[in-house]
Amino acid sequence: MDYAAVLQEIETRVQPLMGQGQVAQYIPELARVQARQFGMAVVTLDGQVFEVGAARQRFSIQSISKLFALVLALQRVGEPLWQRVGREPSGNPFNSLVQLEHEAGRPRNPFINAGALVITDILCTRFAVPENAVVEFLRLLAGEAEIHYDRRVARSELGHADRNAAMAHFMKSFGNLHNPVERVLDAYCRQCAIEMSCVELARAVGFLANRGCLPGTATRILDESPAKRLSALMLTCGTYDAAGDFAFRVGLPAKSGVGGGIVALVPGECGVCVWSPALEPSGNSLAGSMALEWFTTLTGRSLF
Amino acid sequence: MDYAAVLQEIETRVQPLMGQGQVAQYIPELARVQARQFGMAVVTLDGQVFEVGAARQRFSIQSISKLFALVLALQRVGEPLWQRVGREPSGNPFNSLVQLEHEAGRPRNPFINAGALVITDILCTRFAVPENAVVEFLRLLAGEAEIHYDRRVARSELGHADRNAAMAHFMKSFGNLHNPVERVLDAYCRQCAIEMSCVELARAVGFLANRGCLPGTATRILDESPAKRLSALMLTCGTYDAAGDFAFRVGLPAKSGVGGGIVALVPGECGVCVWSPALEPSGNSLAGSMALEWFTTLTGRSLF
Amino acid sequence: MDYAAVLQEIETRVQPLMGQGQVAQYIPELARVQARQFGMAVVTLDGQVFEVGAARQRFSIQSISKLFALVLALQRVGEPLWQRVGREPSGNPFNSLVQLEHEAGRPRNPFINAGALVITDILCTRFAVPENAVVEFLRLLAGEAEIHYDRRVARSELGHADRNAAMAHFMKSFGNLHNPVERVLDAYCRQCAIEMSCVELARAVGFLANRGCLPGTATRILDESPAKRLSALMLTCGTYDAAGDFAFRVGLPAKSGVGGGIVALVPGECGVCVWSPALEPSGNSLAGSMALEWFTTLTGRSLF
Amino acid sequence: MDYAAVLQEIETRVQPLMGQGQVAQYIPELARVQARQFGMAVVTLDGQVFEVGAARQRFSIQSISKLFALVLALQRVGEPLWQRVGREPSGNPFNSLVQLEHEAGRPRNPFINAGALVITDILCTRFAVPENAVVEFLRLLAGEAEIHYDRRVARSELGHADRNAAMAHFMKSFGNLHNPVERVLDAYCRQCAIEMSCVELARAVGFLANRGCLPGTATRILDESPAKRLSALMLTCGTYDAAGDFAFRVGLPAKSGVGGGIVALVPGECGVCVWSPALEPSGNSLAGSMALEWFTTLTGRSLF
Repeated sequence: MDYAAVLQEIETRVQPLMGQGQVAQYIPELARVQARQFGMAVVTLDGQVFEVGAARQRFSIQSISKLFALVLALQRVGEPLWQRVGREPSGNPFNSLVQLEHEAGRPRNPFINAGALVITDILCTRFAVPENAVVEFLRLLAGEAEIHYDRRVARSELGHADRNAAMAHFMKSFGNLHNPVERVLDAYCRQCAIEMSCVELARAVGFLANRGCLPGTATRILDESPAKRLSALMLTCGTYDAAGDFAFRVGLPAKSGVGGGIVALVPGECGVCVWSPALEPSGNSLAGSMALEWFTTLTGRSLF
Repeated sequence: MDYAAVLQEIETRVQPLMGQGQVAQYIPELARVQARQFGMAVVTLDGQVFEVGAARQRFSIQSISKLFALVLALQRVGEPLWQRVGREPSGNPFNSLVQLEHEAGRPRNPFINAGALVITDILCTRFAVPENAVVEFLRLLAGEAEIHYDRRVARSELGHADRNAAMAHFMKSFGNLHNPVERVLDAYCRQCAIEMSCVELARAVGFLANRGCLPGTATRILDESPAKRLSALMLTCGTYDAAGDFAFRVGLPAKSGVGGGIVALVPGECGVCVWSPALEPSGNSLAGSMALEWFTTLTGRSLF
Repeated sequence: MDYAAVLQEIETRVQPLMGQGQVAQYIPELARVQARQFGMAVVTLDGQVFEVGAARQRFSIQSISKLFALVLALQRVGEPLWQRVGREPSGNPFNSLVQLEHEAGRPRNPFINAGALVITDILCTRFAVPENAVVEFLRLLAGEAEIHYDRRVARSELGHADRNAAMAHFMKSFGNLHNPVERVLDAYCRQCAIEMSCVELARAVGFLANRGCLPGTATRILDESPAKRLSALMLTCGTYDAAGDFAFRVGLPAKSGVGGGIVALVPGECGVCVWSPALEPSGNSLAGSMALEWFTTLTGRSLF
Repeated sequence: MDYAAVLQEIETRVQPLMGQGQVAQYIPELARVQARQFGMAVVTLDGQVFEVGAARQRFSIQSISKLFALVLALQRVGEPLWQRVGREPSGNPFNSLVQLEHEAGRPRNPFINAGALVITDILCTRFAVPENAVVEFLRLLAGEAEIHYDRRVARSELGHADRNAAMAHFMKSFGNLHNPVERVLDAYCRQCAIEMSCVELARAVGFLANRGCLPGTATRILDESPAKRLSALMLTCGTYDAAGDFAFRVGLPAKSGVGGGIVALVPGECGVCVWSPALEPSGNSLAGSMALEWFTTLTGRSLF
């Protein structure tokens, strides 16, 4: 597959979209990001890197961190993790408390905020400094020592975390949060503030395309079956309330963040990451979603 | 792939499950079906048939008909169909009116009852006798002239259709149903009462595994892109409220019915159908779900 | 109490409100009513009539009929009626299906549409022609033989009854509707189309202010306790979703209709009725609500 | 009215109810209260005290404090208070977050927990030590200097306040809470832990029966109109999710607490308070509700 040509073509097609959509507004640090940016990277399982645009520029990974926090928690806890969080699409905006109330404090899946807070709670129990554990894990996966979180972004998120605090207290009232709410929120906001580039993220997600093994190594991150199942979960729940439509249009497992990044993967072939800060109303990168739709069309690499 | 051996192994594993779950109770015709039955068939794109158990016995396809009705409607209406029905998982029990109220009468997807009623409404506009159109279409897909619906089942369903009538009237109040409610319900109940066997259904679903073409022919049912997208929709929405969990465990596009049947497909390879009447609480065949989970484990043929 | 002066004062105050609000639009027969009309009547328990404006002009009583249908059903069925319909405010718009779904088809109270359909279902079981029974009952209460329903309005309502049909079928699916949906809807629409004037309605509601006895007669309509309890129900549930605010501002038992009428009562003293067709968003008459608020302020006759 | 005889009769009738219902369980301090206790007091506007049973024993007033906190806030803020909290029955369990989400963080009324937290937030803005302000106010109303809150109960409530914390953070995310969540919760829990007797509470509520004036004095607590409106609010919203039924059965303005107390009033006549710790599922005192129902039956003093 000539990924270089595919990325080139996508970059051309994406240009008219620059200026559409809106950068996330809820914290100043994200709101001031320049909207008209675009980068994309493909990292194949045999280590080739294809990239276009701002593929080396770091951005706030935000909810993409939920994917890696989940993997870390699964490594430690295994299947019993699913007793505390479900595997169903939410069918409601990503910060809804309604569903939590109807389902006794068990979040629908680990990619909505409530579910991610439960995962962070698990990490708080297992690690002295959970945000550092996530950073370390991403350094390992991306093969890059200089990955950090932005303290200003983390602090700013914490200052706007009332809705997440509401969910955390609510789950605690159902017994589904074990650590102090403040500690969980703090770790959660720090992990969301991690900064990475498209190239780094496309490499970091490679093990999911490689049946659970870090590509080019013998390092097993997850067993084959949980790795595949995690990909299924990304497909059904990875892109907020638009997961059905995203699966329909793109047909690849993916996880997005309000920083404008989306990671995806082609099983057996490669990790992919696209970034463009302006979002659709669903919270997914507008140009990023289109880029991935063109990617599957041009490569024929949908799952289906 | 030695599908014969795989099916053999599945049949053995399935035995201890006989007696678990419960046959659908809402109409007498379904309630009196003998629970301890199991059949499974694989039909490859090159026409080989593998089967085990009661794979030639016909059963009430029920909601599996929604898949084929949708294809028929897509053939006639194309993309504008999606203005009247969404593509997102419902996140609520399959007959919920709550979501309809919150979303102005536009059902979440064509596989929940409300969405299927909109599809039948489209067929009522396009065909003089829509239930016959669905039957004819299934005869073509299955290569079998003697497919019919059971009039007693259809009549009995119509006598228990108050919840569907409620949804139909409700959508009509929003302008999203164009034909008389009675006519739509009648056609819907007849199409649900179609009877087919595992072998027939595994063959009928083959075109979705074959990029939209009827296997072994040049007959195009859908273009490649809509065919693939339909598979994505089956993965995210095809198994009622358990679609996320089903994707997680099985990892194949599938559509189930309360008659105990589940059709699935392996892109590029084969159609699959399993049948066992006793259901899980989610409305999916209990033994059928397990059989498909073992199928992907034994064949390695998950999408991911 | 100098009711004549009070009504005079109210009529003066009401003038600036003419032109505000909007006449009910869902059927043409109501939409074409001239908005800038106002009438009000007080009928004391000793038979004095005070009136102002268009107090003798008949209008479509609409949901006010729910009050009298309920009394008729209570006369026949008594306390067991409350097993099929609750006595709690709905907290949701008056045609909501959500609550019905969460509460297994038992409507919150007999003054929301769903509850009124259950009451009409009871009347369908008890009377050959239930709409005539309601008309006869109102003739008795108002002491006026020439009360009728408008067939054109009834027919038009029936043609726009999809949402009520949805609720009726939904309740039938829960077993809380015994007669055919069509029959119940037909009787319901006819009873809503009854036409009466402020003077007639103020007299008709007198028995509720008179501990259950028709004023000036020995005719008992309800026993004292159920009559008082009905007044309590009017206070908590009689004015759609604004019942709390209405009780807060007006402080009298009342029942409103989208035709712009509101009946109210002062226990031990009088029946009251006001009419002005333009509505608030809540569905209550805009000028009528203000008129009743001034009525309690000017007379000091709130319950509290 | 021979209140002494009425109370005597009620005490007799109440005996068979002792042993029914269940004492509030969510904090140990309430759970260990002896269930089989009953007291009731009537304090007339001219200062006569009628009492029966444990009418001088103090109990945790819990949600009854919401009534007096609201009066205090109304004194300071007046009508604009209603921009931050509604006046409609909630139609949902008293700690529901669903409604808050649908209504943008504005609670339905000041007697559900969410609404009471907004009121406490207002008190936190207006008073240095809001819980002391409520205590002082109750001392004034009850004419009794030795009213206090129980610090152990307050601390214990604070340790089980996750659901209230969830609501507070949630409202803060909508901008409807101005003080730090911790401060609001702390004041709220202390005010709930105030301890008073039936006699004290029956006297304290007297001003609402007296058009806003402290009985026997010229001290105006509220103007006449807001005082009456507050009584209306008690009738429609004062007894949790059972307010409609309570109004139907009892027909008096009332406010209950999970400590088993219920205050009520007969406009123009008296304040009433009943206490019995065992609750109905709705959260209202079981024997207390029945006692008040008998009270209106025996005295004929319903509003209607």
